[in-house]
Amino acid sequence: MAPAGPSMARRIASGLYPAKEIEMSRLAFQDYYPEDVAHCYGCGYKNEHGLRIRSFWDGQESVCYYTPSPHHTAVPGYVYGGLIASLIDCHSTGTAAAAAYRASDRSMDSEPPLRFVTASLHVDYLRPTPLGPMLEIRGVVDELKGRKVVVSSTLSAEGVVCARGRVVAVQIPADLFSAG
Amino acid sequence: MAPAGPSMARRIASGLYPAKEIEMSRLAFQDYYPEDVAHCYGCGYKNEHGLRIRSFWDGQESVCYYTPSPHHTAVPGYVYGGLIASLIDCHSTGTAAAAAYRASDRSMDSEPPLRFVTASLHVDYLRPTPLGPMLEIRGVVDELKGRKVVVSSTLSAEGVVCARGRVVAVQIPADLFSAG
Repeated sequence: MAPAGPSMARRIASGLYPAKEIEMSRLAFQDYYPEDVAHCYGCGYKNEHGLRIRSFWDGQESVCYYTPSPHHTAVPGYVYGGLIASLIDCHSTGTAAAAAYRASDRSMDSEPPLRFVTASLHVDYLRPTPLGPMLEIRGVVDELKGRKVVVSSTLSAEGVVCARGRVVAVQIPADLFSAG
Repeated sequence: MAPAGPSMARRIASGLYPAKEIEMSRLAFQDYYPEDVAHCYGCGYKNEHGLRIRSFWDGQESVCYYTPSPHHTAVPGYVYGGLIASLIDCHSTGTAAAAAYRASDRSMDSEPPLRFVTASLHVDYLRPTPLGPMLEIRGVVDELKGRKVVVSSTLSAEGVVCARGRVVAVQIPADLFSAG
């Protein structure tokens, strides 16, 4: 097991994060992922090809902001549904982890690390999501029981809810951790 | 409305498809998408940054093969769930379109074009999907009624089903077509 928690100075030095971004915001849920499970295409800070989404508490809700790239298109002018599913997926597993730490009254850099994977994902596409505006994904923890956390979410563009998600997340089995 | 159906010679000449690939395989469902709705990140031949998945009939089932890239990772060694959702999504909407043509006893290059978007997507992740092997996604049309098609699917690696999907696809509204 690699050390848990962020080593921000190293990440900034390596260029994984621009210093300006770090200065401008607090640490995200994903910033606390242990380095050996921080490669996720959707949310891992070690995946230089990935989306690198970042999620935060906003009171009892979790929130993530993401601006799709022009190539993240479905039909022209609208956001690709697979990206929407990916954002909901990773924001929800991140929320699950943060909720599990919070329920244990633990900080996210305490040992042992808690990391969640997706057991099931459901997305209802309510209307086409315009491509261009920054998207807001908001999550609410519906259930937290043992190794299972259920997170419901909305994805909005310019204040209009375009998709709803529901993710059942389960705590990652210890044998899935690798030397990375 | 741009001309429907493939213009393969033009696509080959433009480098959108390597000639070798065309020679090696028959046309996929997605090859028939009208050019103004062929930008999808998951399945559009006009999206040079996208996955460009290709789906075919195999009897009553549809099939798609896709080999994830090394960066399509969740935890190291396993495929990112958002990619799995994307593959199931696009393979299912492609299957929906092909099924709608087939139900109308029409070829896929006939007018007017039929193109589907996702109303809802559900994925059950049954086990971690190993990153490396080519994945096989198989779809079955559960329901086809009016503008709605329901497609169930499996995603397998090395013969083992790792995920199951269910997509409700609806025929694309005419006003979503643009000049591209």
